[in-house]
Amino acid sequence: MKVTQRVRKILSAYESDSPGTKANIARILMQGRLGGSGKVLILPVDQGVEHGPARSFAANPVGYDPHYHYKLAIDAGLSAYAAPLGFIEAGADSFAGTIPTILKCNSANSLSGNKDQGIYGSVGDALRLGCSAIGFTIYPGSEDQYEMIEEIRELSEEAKAVGLAVVVWSYPRGGNITTEGETAMDLCAYAAHLACQIGAHIIKVKPPTDAMYLDAAKKVYEAENIDVATLSARIAHVVQSCFNGRRLVVFSGGAAKDLDGVFDEVRAVRDGGGNGSIIGRNTFQRPREEALKMLDSIIKIYQGKL
Amino acid sequence: MKVTQRVRKILSAYESDSPGTKANIARILMQGRLGGSGKVLILPVDQGVEHGPARSFAANPVGYDPHYHYKLAIDAGLSAYAAPLGFIEAGADSFAGTIPTILKCNSANSLSGNKDQGIYGSVGDALRLGCSAIGFTIYPGSEDQYEMIEEIRELSEEAKAVGLAVVVWSYPRGGNITTEGETAMDLCAYAAHLACQIGAHIIKVKPPTDAMYLDAAKKVYEAENIDVATLSARIAHVVQSCFNGRRLVVFSGGAAKDLDGVFDEVRAVRDGGGNGSIIGRNTFQRPREEALKMLDSIIKIYQGKL
Amino acid sequence: MKVTQRVRKILSAYESDSPGTKANIARILMQGRLGGSGKVLILPVDQGVEHGPARSFAANPVGYDPHYHYKLAIDAGLSAYAAPLGFIEAGADSFAGTIPTILKCNSANSLSGNKDQGIYGSVGDALRLGCSAIGFTIYPGSEDQYEMIEEIRELSEEAKAVGLAVVVWSYPRGGNITTEGETAMDLCAYAAHLACQIGAHIIKVKPPTDAMYLDAAKKVYEAENIDVATLSARIAHVVQSCFNGRRLVVFSGGAAKDLDGVFDEVRAVRDGGGNGSIIGRNTFQRPREEALKMLDSIIKIYQGKL
Amino acid sequence: MKVTQRVRKILSAYESDSPGTKANIARILMQGRLGGSGKVLILPVDQGVEHGPARSFAANPVGYDPHYHYKLAIDAGLSAYAAPLGFIEAGADSFAGTIPTILKCNSANSLSGNKDQGIYGSVGDALRLGCSAIGFTIYPGSEDQYEMIEEIRELSEEAKAVGLAVVVWSYPRGGNITTEGETAMDLCAYAAHLACQIGAHIIKVKPPTDAMYLDAAKKVYEAENIDVATLSARIAHVVQSCFNGRRLVVFSGGAAKDLDGVFDEVRAVRDGGGNGSIIGRNTFQRPREEALKMLDSIIKIYQGKL
Amino acid sequence: MKVTQRVRKILSAYESDSPGTKANIARILMQGRLGGSGKVLILPVDQGVEHGPARSFAANPVGYDPHYHYKLAIDAGLSAYAAPLGFIEAGADSFAGTIPTILKCNSANSLSGNKDQGIYGSVGDALRLGCSAIGFTIYPGSEDQYEMIEEIRELSEEAKAVGLAVVVWSYPRGGNITTEGETAMDLCAYAAHLACQIGAHIIKVKPPTDAMYLDAAKKVYEAENIDVATLSARIAHVVQSCFNGRRLVVFSGGAAKDLDGVFDEVRAVRDGGGNGSIIGRNTFQRPREEALKMLDSIIKIYQGKL
Repeated sequence: MKVTQRVRKILSAYESDSPGTKANIARILMQGRLGGSGKVLILPVDQGVEHGPARSFAANPVGYDPHYHYKLAIDAGLSAYAAPLGFIEAGADSFAGTIPTILKCNSANSLSGNKDQGIYGSVGDALRLGCSAIGFTIYPGSEDQYEMIEEIRELSEEAKAVGLAVVVWSYPRGGNITTEGETAMDLCAYAAHLACQIGAHIIKVKPPTDAMYLDAAKKVYEAENIDVATLSARIAHVVQSCFNGRRLVVFSGGAAKDLDGVFDEVRAVRDGGGNGSIIGRNTFQRPREEALKMLDSIIKIYQGKL
Repeated sequence: MKVTQRVRKILSAYESDSPGTKANIARILMQGRLGGSGKVLILPVDQGVEHGPARSFAANPVGYDPHYHYKLAIDAGLSAYAAPLGFIEAGADSFAGTIPTILKCNSANSLSGNKDQGIYGSVGDALRLGCSAIGFTIYPGSEDQYEMIEEIRELSEEAKAVGLAVVVWSYPRGGNITTEGETAMDLCAYAAHLACQIGAHIIKVKPPTDAMYLDAAKKVYEAENIDVATLSARIAHVVQSCFNGRRLVVFSGGAAKDLDGVFDEVRAVRDGGGNGSIIGRNTFQRPREEALKMLDSIIKIYQGKL
Repeated sequence: MKVTQRVRKILSAYESDSPGTKANIARILMQGRLGGSGKVLILPVDQGVEHGPARSFAANPVGYDPHYHYKLAIDAGLSAYAAPLGFIEAGADSFAGTIPTILKCNSANSLSGNKDQGIYGSVGDALRLGCSAIGFTIYPGSEDQYEMIEEIRELSEEAKAVGLAVVVWSYPRGGNITTEGETAMDLCAYAAHLACQIGAHIIKVKPPTDAMYLDAAKKVYEAENIDVATLSARIAHVVQSCFNGRRLVVFSGGAAKDLDGVFDEVRAVRDGGGNGSIIGRNTFQRPREEALKMLDSIIKIYQGKL
Repeated sequence: MKVTQRVRKILSAYESDSPGTKANIARILMQGRLGGSGKVLILPVDQGVEHGPARSFAANPVGYDPHYHYKLAIDAGLSAYAAPLGFIEAGADSFAGTIPTILKCNSANSLSGNKDQGIYGSVGDALRLGCSAIGFTIYPGSEDQYEMIEEIRELSEEAKAVGLAVVVWSYPRGGNITTEGETAMDLCAYAAHLACQIGAHIIKVKPPTDAMYLDAAKKVYEAENIDVATLSARIAHVVQSCFNGRRLVVFSGGAAKDLDGVFDEVRAVRDGGGNGSIIGRNTFQRPREEALKMLDSIIKIYQGKL
Repeated sequence: MKVTQRVRKILSAYESDSPGTKANIARILMQGRLGGSGKVLILPVDQGVEHGPARSFAANPVGYDPHYHYKLAIDAGLSAYAAPLGFIEAGADSFAGTIPTILKCNSANSLSGNKDQGIYGSVGDALRLGCSAIGFTIYPGSEDQYEMIEEIRELSEEAKAVGLAVVVWSYPRGGNITTEGETAMDLCAYAAHLACQIGAHIIKVKPPTDAMYLDAAKKVYEAENIDVATLSARIAHVVQSCFNGRRLVVFSGGAAKDLDGVFDEVRAVRDGGGNGSIIGRNTFQRPREEALKMLDSIIKIYQGKL
């Protein structure tokens, strides 16, 4: 594949990374229907671990089968597929070389009382399974956040040494953070910036609301007249917080909503300069044909056709 | 031994595993009277560690002798024998090559206040003792669950690298989980799925009741009309939760009950498509002849003869 | 990229390899204009080390620049680019993610008296430089052949453990082997088989002549009426010697010759069922436009269009 | 499988070995139609490496395919299949758990001038490929013999630590040893004893002739009236030299000969108390049906039926 | 220091190297009176090891003191100081942070019969002594050349991993190479190219004469009309052979000669596009004032002032 100028420019911002790591970022950026555009659309399926199998797959029971998700991501022309160890192991051979994969190395589950996650994927696993990146969640604000940061630091250093990319899910959670705070503008930008600072190549955050969580931050946003009125303005602020666009930042699809809601959000990501979407539940819980249609629309939005 | 088509198909689902690991899974699947059928019957004897010797073996004092259990498993034509380090060490030479063994690497004991287990078996032990697999218990829901997950992750990566199989006992326990919750339908399926996702080859769970533990799950089971009315339906749901049958899942014998209760449960496992049973106390606490008779009946049930 | 059925079938023969290694073989097989066809065309540029810079690049001086070769391979739509450490280092970042690369880990040079090679690339280098495979030359028949075999064994085990592919150049040379013997039918088939047996995924040999080197072999070829009359028949015999087609075998372009000679040889590789060509000098020593035209013709031959 | 008393007794002689190693020896001894009898019949296919592909497989071209040999060994009901890395890799997954395999870790080739071998299989390979043993050739008498001994020592120590068995091919060769000497009674017994002393579990030697090589030995054989008149007497002497029967010793089929010659030799092995045969060329170079028939006869001879 | 555009461009050619390694190359390129110009002047003092102390230092006995050389390099405004372990250890503290140092890790001595060198400096030494680079000599053509290449490969991979630069002295020597051959045009270009290919950042060779060593090369130089008439033309050809100028190549002062001879040579290096000089004996064997004056002239030549 000929790497486009746009992708080449994105890669050049990862200036201290090895060619191996850049090649893996390039693989994700050049894959699928958005390949070369600088936008990505990623399918993450860690829902089974996080919420249990029935809550994840009962709505569309073919999703119990790990091959289903690989196929969905491939047939929809997505950029990458992200999943925990077991799901990757169960399809890595059948789909070897077909789509870049991201080994999600830690996960929470609904039975946990504390805001932490268990690690059950390694850099060695990522290599033997042919993954392009490792994925990791941190909870800025959690009582366990520093342990989480130290865990990803270790994995990340190891991953970079062998030419893998690092994707960080950064979700404010735990401590005193309210539910509103978890998606507040200031915390979302803060979480994105924090993930960049700990060395992530690709950052995933939730689309921010116009709520403010920290009083100290709120004052600055007001004093400096930072535009947070529209979602696209907020997205632009998150992009700015990611080293002024030198790091790729993608946005989750958020809570299940109607299609128009999803599409509007994607348009805002596009207009705000975000690098794409990472949408799980909203796709694999729909019947396959509906999911493919929805993903087709999202791709067209990123292509500026819708 | 000629590996049957049925077993060959089961093995093919472990698509990212080495031939060494597959050979060890094959050994368990081809062993004993159920060999080749895709069903397994495993004898686990970690009761001594978990509950102390008298509570475990006084009812049938020959069980104090580790050779007793090896012989019982062999004479009954079982698929494998699982036990902690000491019990395996005490018979591994006498019974070398006779029956696949699973080195249970961690155990709880009745003297512990927290829901965790101590690790006292290693991959190196498993190799020198000629075991086919390592076994490990996790307690989803426990305050220590993430540490347990991280422990098995490390053992598991090591085991896979040297061609061993990984068996995970996944028991919801600890945290706020009620006694009813420990065997609730949703938690049982969740625990099985979680074990698959952390990379287990064979998963052991308890037969689920029709109770529901998580409200969020309960809603989905009702909304999606998931059939949990009969034990066999619940077993089928657990099988589905294990990557739609791509991972072997076996069921414990549950609490001590009369023989008819045991047999009914086994029939439900069979009818629900479960891959077999792993029954400890219920066998070795009976006199040998009774135990052999009971195991013979269970085998016949799996063979469809009873 | 959607891996074609033909490529999927080729990959399935590497049955003991990890998904990571298969993904890297797939990358080579799916790249460029022959992508998906099961045929490959690889540009190797280790000439500078082997024969010195002037003998390699003076004929087409743009070739002194390492970027030239990357571009040539990409613009011609080739399957992969193979080169020593320095040449890969000098372009790995500029062309990250653009074309699969093979790090040639050892090389001879024209100043050496013995039939050995020096190693100056490692598996760690291959990972940090984003290579898909390591390459290594052995000289069956050389006094140093067993040391060379032991060197590649070590590199190969390491490469497979981290999901890389292994390409072996197998050239009978040294000992009592005559110049004629170096390309004799029996030695060429033997060298190819040997490379398969030491665990190579892709084997490179020279197109065999109809000469025979070992008397013992000659007798068998005659007694068994093995068809070695035409080059395509000889190619077919080499393919057979590579585990009856279970391993990919590619052929060097041989000594410099006119274009028709090159094309005839490629047709014979195609007709004999060989998996492709690996042509260095014959391409980069021509002016770029001529080289592109020649490579275009070779690709068309493999596509059955010429 | 229930290990027989006879096999149990054989295993007990390996008194310092781990249960893991014994289990692997047991697997070989309990496999196939001779399983449990204390006799073994092993198919070795390293001919392709040693003599080249055409000399090995042209007589029966299906043998170019590595799966052919696995199937032949399984269908004939043999005890184990021994081959170099490439051949094992090419079938290890398809035949996982079906027949014990021995990874031949070193090989010579016909192009070598010195009496040494190259190593290209490791203990790590044996584990990931699910092998029961590693195999290794030494050439007592060669200029390189001590290096070879030191190489197997290292591999052997490693193999024993992880529960594998060690099979040593011990062939007097090199130095001043004449062709007659290579199979002389005294050298054959010496080579077998040497292999036992360096820690082999199973020893392979050639059936000795009544020639004597070392004068010093000749004197003793005469002075002590050691019976070497018949092949079975010579076999008995080799068995005695293998720690008086405490180590398993098997005999190669020797140079291609007519069937009666093969059968007579096997009878002599049986009558002399040898533990079996390891026959390559003589089987896989015949058409499959003939080979199966020949192997059936050999098995019957070991069973005392022919 | 502000890195100049010229230096920035040179650094950009080291595209696969870490910022740490680039920073160390930059330190050398930005140091002293030539800092920023893209030219370097390096003082190497390994003469004591190579020829013994009296032959090295008796002419100017202050040179027995390691501090003398540090001071000379600093006072003359040079780019770096290269020396073996002992000399660096003896001044590294006094001059910490004053001038970039290159730890010469191997050396020959006059007592050796074979064309090899002993290694007595490590990457760890370079780090603890604050060096910017490791230095290493290879002898292309020597019987030991492949061992030397493998030694520097290992050191080089280690050095790059910790952000050090690698300087390779590449001298054709040994084997059949004649004294004339050691500085022949073709061998000098070959040696420079070889050093680039094994991954050196900075290459040191001797200024080539117009002699040709390899017949095969001679033909090409004649056929392609490669200009080797003047030293500056020959330097230009060496620069071209160093990846068309993508690697820094510096030239030794050659055999002791009068000042005008030295200056003419330096002018040729400058005019041919070489990156500078590395001059030992010719400086430290002169009285300090003379040496400073000579170095001042050389610097002025590189600055285009003389």
